[in-house]
Amino acid sequence: MRNFMLTLRYDGGRYNGWQKQGNTDNTIQEKLERICAEVTGEDVTAQGAGRTDRGVHAMGQCISFHLAHWSDSPEALQTAINEKLPEDIAVTDAQEKEPRFHSRLNAKGKWYTYTVWHSKMPPVFWRKYAFWCQDALRLKKMREAAKCLEGTHDFRSFCANRNMKKSTVRTIYAIHLEETEQQLRFHFFGDGFLYHMIRILVGTLIEVGEGKKEVADIPQILAAKNRQAAGFTAPAHGLCLREVFYHTELLQKKAKEASYDSRE
Amino acid sequence: MRNFMLTLRYDGGRYNGWQKQGNTDNTIQEKLERICAEVTGEDVTAQGAGRTDRGVHAMGQCISFHLAHWSDSPEALQTAINEKLPEDIAVTDAQEKEPRFHSRLNAKGKWYTYTVWHSKMPPVFWRKYAFWCQDALRLKKMREAAKCLEGTHDFRSFCANRNMKKSTVRTIYAIHLEETEQQLRFHFFGDGFLYHMIRILVGTLIEVGEGKKEVADIPQILAAKNRQAAGFTAPAHGLCLREVFYHTELLQKKAKEASYDSRE
Repeated sequence: MRNFMLTLRYDGGRYNGWQKQGNTDNTIQEKLERICAEVTGEDVTAQGAGRTDRGVHAMGQCISFHLAHWSDSPEALQTAINEKLPEDIAVTDAQEKEPRFHSRLNAKGKWYTYTVWHSKMPPVFWRKYAFWCQDALRLKKMREAAKCLEGTHDFRSFCANRNMKKSTVRTIYAIHLEETEQQLRFHFFGDGFLYHMIRILVGTLIEVGEGKKEVADIPQILAAKNRQAAGFTAPAHGLCLREVFYHTELLQKKAKEASYDSRE
Repeated sequence: MRNFMLTLRYDGGRYNGWQKQGNTDNTIQEKLERICAEVTGEDVTAQGAGRTDRGVHAMGQCISFHLAHWSDSPEALQTAINEKLPEDIAVTDAQEKEPRFHSRLNAKGKWYTYTVWHSKMPPVFWRKYAFWCQDALRLKKMREAAKCLEGTHDFRSFCANRNMKKSTVRTIYAIHLEETEQQLRFHFFGDGFLYHMIRILVGTLIEVGEGKKEVADIPQILAAKNRQAAGFTAPAHGLCLREVFYHTELLQKKAKEASYDSRE
């Protein structure tokens, strides 16, 4: 048995998210597993580091799976899979890993970017990759509120799964707000994120920007441990899984550096 | 009668180009004229500065038309039209012009950008806005070839209309090749461009990059005045009309500066 990790980039626009679901079709996992099976002749179960929701994009999703009979290089596997993938999914890297490596269980954290199109001008070329918000936003207040959300907290108020039995404590290493001429990009670096957590964080920060919430509300929202206390859920199409980290130091370094590339 | 000029941005992906055609439907001109008529109650004939082909995009198409009864500001017209336009077309500016102004006849030149995705990695997020070329390209040779194409020439070899009766002499003020990590962008500044001219220029320059043509071939291709002498026609979806210029000095200044923004 050999163990492989692939890095995936995908436009989530026409998929029902990463993860296979009982009756719903058209997930990225299904698509990839089917093509892996065609290429290798083996049944493949691909583990994704992040369970990106329906409509969410990825530039650095990491997945892992075992193959019993593949005798060629990881690069050859990447090329063979890319030849069969549709044009909105691509394998950007392939590596062989130690037998016990698991893309999700070994992940130490992730970087997500949420893009807001912040302009009166419609987002013609960004309509599928950014949430359009025309309201004036108090950026300074939003940055202050983001600071209150950094660190280790119980993020139950920012979790859409009301029956979440496991711990809802997570650590956010950094939240950066990057402002370009017509965009506002929220960068989240954390050890893990709950169901819809980033989208609710973004919705809450936007409400702070609009003056519907104040910076001083943030500690109370956290303390409430109740989804109702937080803001709206920003739509899926603005969200992108940028990178999965397998070393905490690398994640912390990246969170500090805060240098971002565009969607190239 | 008042005369208005609108600046348009559009994703050409699902349209049959700018210009209305007898029987084919789904052009941007049609769509815009229909919405103008709804908004103003007048029959409108919109003149576009550039007749962008099917699949070609625009960030700065300029159009002009007359209205007999509009009594509000150009901005109010812009807002009213934007409210009805689909999300892949937007009016980014509106101005009132002198009565005889005509968006195409008064244009002194245009800036077009052609984007090539130059990477082994598939252009997941750029698949609709860039032509994917995986070949190694001799950039220095391409720049030399581009230099040979600048200036005033008979570009008949770069015109797809074989029955072109009018002059095929045009002036290209500058061709710049901008290289980013995974893209090669060709910027063309000229007083006017023939049918498919930029796409054939790009195809020819790519062939120079691939070594299928040499820099020394360029003067001969121009002299041939025969479409067969030039390279292939690069696909429409990589092309974008960036800006229309109504003052030659502004065009020449921009061509010299050569500072580009991305597709924001």
